[in-house]
This record gives sequence, C-alpha cells and structure tokens, in this order.
Amino acid sequence: MANVKIALIQMNVMVDKQANLQAAVQAIAECARQGAQIISLPEMFCCPYQTENFPVYAEKQGGPLWKALAAAAHDNRVYLVGGSMPEVDQAGKVYNTCYIFDPSGQQIGRHRKMHMFDIDIPGGQKFKESDTLTPGNAVTVVDTSFGRVGVSVCYDLRFPELARLMALRGAKMFIVPGAFNMTTGPAHWEMLFRARAVDNQVYTLGCAPARDPQAGYVSYANSLAVSPWGEVIERLGAEPGVLLADLDLDRVEQVRGQLPLLNQRRTDLYELKTLDGS
Amino acid sequence: MANVKIALIQMNVMVDKQANLQAAVQAIAECARQGAQIISLPEMFCCPYQTENFPVYAEKQGGPLWKALAAAAHDNRVYLVGGSMPEVDQAGKVYNTCYIFDPSGQQIGRHRKMHMFDIDIPGGQKFKESDTLTPGNAVTVVDTSFGRVGVSVCYDLRFPELARLMALRGAKMFIVPGAFNMTTGPAHWEMLFRARAVDNQVYTLGCAPARDPQAGYVSYANSLAVSPWGEVIERLGAEPGVLLADLDLDRVEQVRGQLPLLNQRRTDLYELKTLDGS
Repeated sequence: MANVKIALIQMNVMVDKQANLQAAVQAIAECARQGAQIISLPEMFCCPYQTENFPVYAEKQGGPLWKALAAAAHDNRVYLVGGSMPEVDQAGKVYNTCYIFDPSGQQIGRHRKMHMFDIDIPGGQKFKESDTLTPGNAVTVVDTSFGRVGVSVCYDLRFPELARLMALRGAKMFIVPGAFNMTTGPAHWEMLFRARAVDNQVYTLGCAPARDPQAGYVSYANSLAVSPWGEVIERLGAEPGVLLADLDLDRVEQVRGQLPLLNQRRTDLYELKTLDGS
Repeated sequence: MANVKIALIQMNVMVDKQANLQAAVQAIAECARQGAQIISLPEMFCCPYQTENFPVYAEKQGGPLWKALAAAAHDNRVYLVGGSMPEVDQAGKVYNTCYIFDPSGQQIGRHRKMHMFDIDIPGGQKFKESDTLTPGNAVTVVDTSFGRVGVSVCYDLRFPELARLMALRGAKMFIVPGAFNMTTGPAHWEMLFRARAVDNQVYTLGCAPARDPQAGYVSYANSLAVSPWGEVIERLGAEPGVLLADLDLDRVEQVRGQLPLLNQRRTDLYELKTLDGS
C-alpha cells in the first residue's frame, strides 16, 4: 500500500450529452496533469437526473460514451470511476451504471445501482427511479495497484449492508458517485459518508454533480473525501470544481489495528452474507 | 403509538457504590416527578469504569442493586433502563449488564454487552474490557406501552449489524447506556447515534456518565437524543444533568413512509440474520 492521489470531478450536467462528455474528458486530462491516479466522475454526469431522460440517454456497454471513458483512462494512464450513466441492456432494461477502467483502458468493473431511489417527502423531494430503471444485482469491488476499491452509486450509500459487504471483500476505499438533493443532502450526505468510513474503517469518497438551482432535480453537490477515522479531509461546496486529495492508504490498517472493529464483529452470533454464494 | 417523555440521567460515578445508587434513585424520582415515562441511567452508573473494578462491584441478578432499581421503577411507575452494572453469574463470569424494568417493577429485559471494548490507540485511549468481562450473546428488544425498544451498551453501538437486527425486530427507539472517552467521543459519539438513527429510522438515545477529568477512564459525557431523521433533539455537555425530551413516536412511521429504507433493502441479494434462529 502507498499514497494515492485521487480526484473527484464535481461538474455541471447539461442537456447536451456530448458537451457533458467533452467537459468530463477535459477535466480528466487536467486532473491527470495534476497527478491524480484515481479519478471519479459524478452520478449521471452525462444526463440530467430525471427519470424520463434515462431511457433517452441510455447506451449499451461498449457504446460511444463507454469508449470515450475507456480512452480517457488509457490516454491519461489513470484509474477512472466513470461516475454513472444510463445503460441499456440487450433486453431493453435501463440501469444506472458505473463503469470502472484501469490505466490501460480496460474495464475492470461495472456497478449497476442496486437500490432504487424511490422517495416521497411531503414538502421536500419526490423521485421514483424505478419508473424507468432496473436495479443491479451485484456487490462491486475492483483491484487497483493501490488496493481494493468498492464502488456503489448514490442511494446505495443508505444501506449499511452493502458497505459492510464491500469492506468484507477487502475494499480499503469506497467511491460513490452520487447526487443527494436539497432535502436529503443537508440532512444526511456528510454524515453517511462519515458513518460508512468509521464503521468499515475505509476511505469514503463521494462525487456529485455541481448544483444547478434551475435543474429538475437539484444536486446538493458537496463532493467530499473522508478518512477511515471519519475526518472530512476535504469537501467542496455547490459550485463546479475538482477535489484533489492525497490519501495515505496505510492509515486503513493503522485504524483497524487500534480499533479492530471488523474482527470484533460477533460472527458467532450474526451473519451478513450474499445469497448467491458470491 | 403516542408521545413519550424520556429522561437520560447523566450522573457522576463515584467510588462508593451505595452513594451512586442513592444518587441514581433520587434522580429517577425527580425525573418521574417531571413526567418522564422512560428513564435511563448511564453505563456502569455504580462502578468507576476500570477493568479491575468490575469483579469487585459485581452482583448477581436479583441482588441489592437490582432490587433497588426494580423498586425505583415500581415506586415511580416508570420504565427504567438501568444503565449498566457488573453482573456475576453462577459460574463466576462477569458481564456488563443492563436490566430493564417496567412500571410494576418487573424485569422485562436484560442486555449483556455483546461487543467487548478492547482498543489501543497510540497517544489516545487504551482499554481491554475482556480482561475481566465476558460478552453477552443476545440481541435485546423489550416491549413497552409506547412501542418496542432496543437496548444495547456502549461499544455495541459500533456495530451496524446489531442496530439493524434490533430495528428488524421492531424497535422504534434504541437506548444505549454508554461511555465513550475523550479520544472516541469527540470523533464518533454523536455521528454514530445519528447514523444508527438515520439508517434504521428510529430514535436513538445515548446516556453517559458525567465527565470526571480525575477518573481513570474519562467519560466524554454528551448524553443525547436523536430523531429518526437524524436531528440531534438535545445534547448535554460534560457536567452532570438530566436530558428530558418529548418524543413523537409517530415520526418513526412518517420517516419510514417517506424513505422506505427497511423495505428497500435488497433482501433478495443479501441477508443479515442471527445464527441461533432467534
């Protein structure tokens, strides 16, 4: 393990898919120039976050957006967590999907958001992702030269089970492209990243779109990086920007040595497991 | 469901066991006079928190301390979460035990701390509870006329599995007698109560001993009450005092209706269960 420089790209998301892609690719190159080794885009970086947009903006795995991200990873020699984009499969089902690429441009993982964001808060946020999206069915961890990384998308963060499963599979860092809103963001965004970090003794990174008060769904933004001890290392505001941070991955083992939570779980009394035997 | 007035007694813990008990009983009576219906004492309210004290202060279930708490519940017609005290069983094993009494003075539950507090932070807190304590083996929820309540003790709070199991067993409120310290308290105490509340959509109540900078183990104090939306309703400081709060238990169902997290868990993909079939 060693130090790793991460970059979270908190970008505007516009109606024009190509313009979003172009902005993302430029930002990736700029982050790489500044030494970033793992770079993340935000959730739905290419598609304004509205249920009716997802089928319209969706592409197959291997499509033009996918190819452009693979090329960006390759050309800049970085690990790229491709935020998320609508993915359509052979059967026509649409997913909220994060592709992950290594510095050779190979896809090393794919996370389809597992938990659908269906909420209804009187006077606050309403949204029903499952109107047009299908949930994924797999826990996602990928190996990098810096250690194992767990990837999930936005609402997945709400479920401590998924976080724990990623940690038990060896993740030392969780990267979560996400877009909380102006109801849930101020209430829960930072706290949940801190809690997942402290419970699992991992770095947690949240990468959100910048805030656009005119959008149909207003992103809380506030991309952030949290240490395995739960400290907020850095946090952006509402505006577009890049969060660059050097993470000392040895800190994961240090914290786990001091407070050996994962080993102190009462696995003789309770068990958390996936049902597919994975 | 209805409103319930709770009281958390943040008291000093002295060397004199009887003096501690007397102070606790007086405080319970005063809280009841102020209308409290569920009252909690702090962890190890009768015994300075040091491993060597636990066997010395320990009593059997039904012993003098237990009888005094049962009487206090009965005499004041309140539910009493008896903080915790060292309990010794027939075999001589010592536990960190919370007894829970109903307003008739009947014991309705007993939680033996399940996760031993064994930590070693260079330059910070060291403690090894398992030097003298044995962990309990059961998840604890009790029924009250205000709804089901989950009870755990201090370090148990660190384990999201236990919190989830209590929520899945119907708890609408978690009461946690606890004593974080001056290393872990500022870093994690409030955040963990907020996270358990938000993840499980329950009220969470933490009841700590007051801070004594001269003690062998310095309690962070900061007893607090948190809503199912994660708001800190009230929080004490370092000094002795009582936290009184009116909780609207309908809020649990309201929050669960808006953000149906417990139902949105992917129970087709993962499972958390106890291994004894309970």
